[in-house]
Amino acid sequence: MTEQAELTTNPHARQRLLEAALLLFSSKGYAGTSVRELAETAGVTKPVLYYYFKSKEGIYLALMEGALGEFYKTAEQALAAPGSVTERICGYCAALLDIFIERLPVARLVYAIFYGPHQGAPHIDFEASFSTMLEDMEKLVNEGIASGEFRQISPKDAAWVIVSQLNTAMEEQLCHTEKPRLDRNGLQRLLALLFEGMKKCDD
Amino acid sequence: MTEQAELTTNPHARQRLLEAALLLFSSKGYAGTSVRELAETAGVTKPVLYYYFKSKEGIYLALMEGALGEFYKTAEQALAAPGSVTERICGYCAALLDIFIERLPVARLVYAIFYGPHQGAPHIDFEASFSTMLEDMEKLVNEGIASGEFRQISPKDAAWVIVSQLNTAMEEQLCHTEKPRLDRNGLQRLLALLFEGMKKCDD
Repeated sequence: MTEQAELTTNPHARQRLLEAALLLFSSKGYAGTSVRELAETAGVTKPVLYYYFKSKEGIYLALMEGALGEFYKTAEQALAAPGSVTERICGYCAALLDIFIERLPVARLVYAIFYGPHQGAPHIDFEASFSTMLEDMEKLVNEGIASGEFRQISPKDAAWVIVSQLNTAMEEQLCHTEKPRLDRNGLQRLLALLFEGMKKCDD
Repeated sequence: MTEQAELTTNPHARQRLLEAALLLFSSKGYAGTSVRELAETAGVTKPVLYYYFKSKEGIYLALMEGALGEFYKTAEQALAAPGSVTERICGYCAALLDIFIERLPVARLVYAIFYGPHQGAPHIDFEASFSTMLEDMEKLVNEGIASGEFRQISPKDAAWVIVSQLNTAMEEQLCHTEKPRLDRNGLQRLLALLFEGMKKCDD
């Protein structure tokens, strides 16, 4: 079968390659996965992999950039949502925790790459997503102070306490042994407790 | 040289083996490290490694249990410290962040093992250390409610918001690209902001 014929008969090849990459990079590590295995697991030939992604690096970058792209899009939409500042902070955190849970296998891979031993994968600036959350929250807290919803707190510190809750709630979803002890509703309760320290006492 | 002679001439062999294990497991992964490399890096023979640790699994367990043991000891001492509840919470978090920073290479390895791809290392219950922090904080918050230092908040939720700060401050020390944005003093500022939501408004 020619490459063109295979592309014609296998329109989902690109998606299946991404799924194979997620599966193999997660179970065997990036370094331990070969182009041959990626193609075999996806049920395509190596030329099809090369056609879509050029290389193992290419398929890795497409997988990671796809996931980060969704994350940033969700954050951007949540930041632009209407409502009071506390409502928007709650909505933002809920939306990002939701997408984290929805894409748990890729989130798990991101953590494995970020914290795991260096495996020669191309550099991805995962920390930028954390910085984005901090910046977004700082922006919302500043709005809350300007509107009088919050008292005169440090917007940077307030951003850290909010993002710390979201960060820990996300990581709790990756726990190995049992059901996560913190879910969407739990996160909202923690945020409500934070807001008590940020609002004006006479509210 | 006989094994006994080498043990006599190399009293620091055990410690050097643990340091070699930390170095190699961190850089090459647990699965990628051999007994031969461990012995060579430590500058000892394989029988010396077997004498002290029996196996690669044994040296790994000694390294991890040593680190976790220090962590638990620090937590226990901090929990028993005198002072108001907020002082004790601050002291507890400072002590655990300090030991995390002091033992950063081993902390980094713990994260790599916990989040990284499975490498066949013996199971260690790292999550138990997180549960211990939650339980300790819940205990302190309960004391704070009983003494009137805190209002009637949920001790479990309050424990989560505190531990989330500590957790995020610890992880910030592992960041790859720049100086951590959150240090010991920063963590104390965040805790002070949390306490504002936990204290009685008329305080």
